[in-house]
Amino acid sequence: MRAVDIIRKKRDGGKLEPAEIAFFVEGVTRGTFFDYQASALLMAILLRGMDDEETAWLTGSMVDSGRRLDFSDLAGRKVDKHSTGGVGDKTSLVLAPLAAACGAIVPMMSGRGLGHTGGTLDKLEAIPGFRVDLSPAEIRDSLAAIGCVIVGQTAEVAPADKALYALRDVTGTVESVPLITASIMSKKIAEGIDGLVLDVKTGRGAFMETIDDARRLARSLVAVGNRAGVRTNALITAMDAPLGQTVGNALEIVECLETLKGRGPSDLETLSVRLAAEMLIVAGIAGSAADAEARVRKALASGAGLQKFTEIVARQGGDARVVQDYGRLTPEPARRRSVGAPAAGYLALLDAGRIGRAAALLGAGRSRVGEPIDHGVGITVRAKPGAHLQAGDPVLDLHYRTDETLALALPLATGAIAISPDAVIPGPLVLEEIR
Amino acid sequence: MRAVDIIRKKRDGGKLEPAEIAFFVEGVTRGTFFDYQASALLMAILLRGMDDEETAWLTGSMVDSGRRLDFSDLAGRKVDKHSTGGVGDKTSLVLAPLAAACGAIVPMMSGRGLGHTGGTLDKLEAIPGFRVDLSPAEIRDSLAAIGCVIVGQTAEVAPADKALYALRDVTGTVESVPLITASIMSKKIAEGIDGLVLDVKTGRGAFMETIDDARRLARSLVAVGNRAGVRTNALITAMDAPLGQTVGNALEIVECLETLKGRGPSDLETLSVRLAAEMLIVAGIAGSAADAEARVRKALASGAGLQKFTEIVARQGGDARVVQDYGRLTPEPARRRSVGAPAAGYLALLDAGRIGRAAALLGAGRSRVGEPIDHGVGITVRAKPGAHLQAGDPVLDLHYRTDETLALALPLATGAIAISPDAVIPGPLVLEEIR
Repeated sequence: MRAVDIIRKKRDGGKLEPAEIAFFVEGVTRGTFFDYQASALLMAILLRGMDDEETAWLTGSMVDSGRRLDFSDLAGRKVDKHSTGGVGDKTSLVLAPLAAACGAIVPMMSGRGLGHTGGTLDKLEAIPGFRVDLSPAEIRDSLAAIGCVIVGQTAEVAPADKALYALRDVTGTVESVPLITASIMSKKIAEGIDGLVLDVKTGRGAFMETIDDARRLARSLVAVGNRAGVRTNALITAMDAPLGQTVGNALEIVECLETLKGRGPSDLETLSVRLAAEMLIVAGIAGSAADAEARVRKALASGAGLQKFTEIVARQGGDARVVQDYGRLTPEPARRRSVGAPAAGYLALLDAGRIGRAAALLGAGRSRVGEPIDHGVGITVRAKPGAHLQAGDPVLDLHYRTDETLALALPLATGAIAISPDAVIPGPLVLEEIR
Repeated sequence: MRAVDIIRKKRDGGKLEPAEIAFFVEGVTRGTFFDYQASALLMAILLRGMDDEETAWLTGSMVDSGRRLDFSDLAGRKVDKHSTGGVGDKTSLVLAPLAAACGAIVPMMSGRGLGHTGGTLDKLEAIPGFRVDLSPAEIRDSLAAIGCVIVGQTAEVAPADKALYALRDVTGTVESVPLITASIMSKKIAEGIDGLVLDVKTGRGAFMETIDDARRLARSLVAVGNRAGVRTNALITAMDAPLGQTVGNALEIVECLETLKGRGPSDLETLSVRLAAEMLIVAGIAGSAADAEARVRKALASGAGLQKFTEIVARQGGDARVVQDYGRLTPEPARRRSVGAPAAGYLALLDAGRIGRAAALLGAGRSRVGEPIDHGVGITVRAKPGAHLQAGDPVLDLHYRTDETLALALPLATGAIAISPDAVIPGPLVLEEIR
């Protein structure tokens, strides 16, 4: 088998065979498929596409490049959720304890923030002592003890994805549905889960800006998951404005705790409950959508979810006193600058993309992998789209550390706001379900 | 400027700017544009295309990557011919002396054979002592003295092409009209010529198998040449059967000499005269097609072309006695095996691709750059398409060195022949002109 023949086949729109895909993935992982050949093939895949079967083979080869975790000896259904990334999207931290409180086993492997989007691991690290790098044995012990763990990917999971993503990032081959699908699903399938719920974001703050693109990706993800024996559902959800009321790591932890205490903003609570209910459905724990939602709501109302969150924090080395004492989260308080409505009227737009970038500039995010972040800065959303405002009414609060970062973030934050003289009715949060 | 942004622009079907193309070409030449980014861009160019303006910019950047020869101090118009490669295509060795005998200055830079096609330099090296690696000073002196030189490309000419071709060869990005155009035209424009005639082959023995592909390439080549100030014409010519009566290096030298003596096969003579006449037209030496052809025919009939060929051989260190004594060409005679018609009827097919590959297997060609070849082996064509044959009548003679190479070549040679019970009228040799 020769690399150039595989490239030419895909270049001409052909369908690759499992052996050809495995040759490519193994070669990239071991360094025997040269980078310059891999990038030509990636570009051909981006421009020519792959059907669901090829994408499933690609995903399978990427799973096989590393270790597939096996929790089959643990009683209970293993289930996870994955989001394609948003601004203020903190649902993982609410739904994981809720689903675990309802009896699911949640071996959640999360990522870090990059660009305008936040990452679950960064948020958790706002909790003093919290460890996201548990060993395989610790992960197993946590799942056996409390049914939930929230950790980073171990190096043994789908190493091909790391090699491929590094190449895609510098060769303009990120934006490909089959390549995105294989990247996401290989890591999830390798977790050894039985069920998966996908939250595919669309809108100004999402990677998939249009609903058509989001639908294509969601269908591809669901097809590949189900082919691999992981029962997979997807929700397409709106990401035009930030989810909830905060963007930034410690701020979001507080918001999650408030939500688990029943005092969260309605959009965050609604989406977290809905996604947790979907997890119970794919796990086969709940018999119907209504049953699933009732179980999750009960775990929320009873405080079982908050209790599970506390157990997770304690189990992973974090200071569980933060659950009651938010002051323990941030080393020193940030300064605050309010951004008001530029005119009276209805808040028509709160551009999640711009707010995400503004928060990153304040220090809450990073533009390159590995950059440090400031857990104490971020943005509070004081008014949501549809609200009627007087000129000067607060819309955003910027929590900043230095005048320099404030100067960078302020124009973006200001530009994220649009006021309309006419009444604005926000669209639905959940746009479609793909099963 | 970032490589990834250039890749993404072309990936999305955008038009690259001259500065972006220069950044790419300079970077590839100097090693600062990484191979894995270059190959992704090459694949995007192959699949998204480039318009004539972009292709001309690409060509110009490749010319600028090296030295552009300047013969402007030599009186007379500088003109060359380039063929996209065929089987038995030896016209260069006939038309270069004819055009020079008519007053054109011909700084011909040729290549070597690869795959099923032959190369002018390999053929010339069948002449003992012939040097194709003249220094720039020797090239200039030869042009000043006799008006013609036939040499290999110097390393200073379009080094970007060498770097790009090496990458294209292993990344499935050879078959792209803009990339082929820039590769051919950068080397020709760097020769410092005023006019260029292109022989774009199409058919079973050509890289462009269909007339549509050949036409697209011819138009692109002509557009880029004329934009660069080189008056450029192209002929699209048939390459279904070998041109002339021989395939193989010493065999082809003999056929060229016979043609220059007025005893050549009609297809070779016709095409050589026609291309030489086109050279006089683009050089501005002849006022009309009829005038041009009359001048070339006169140079052929008078023996001026043969005299010029003899001067070229002598000037480049070759044994000029070969012109009269063909026995001086080959170190030792090859053995011969005849392939006859499998049935009575009309010769319907003499597949140039198969015959070219058979000749290469006999040792007349190479499958990899740098492999040695045997100048004494090859194939003689005893019957041309359209001929009426009895079963067993000779069609091909294989000149071979070892039984092993004969065994490899024989099935291909046999498979190149098809006999029809119905009369076969061969199509025209020159299919179209693109100006």
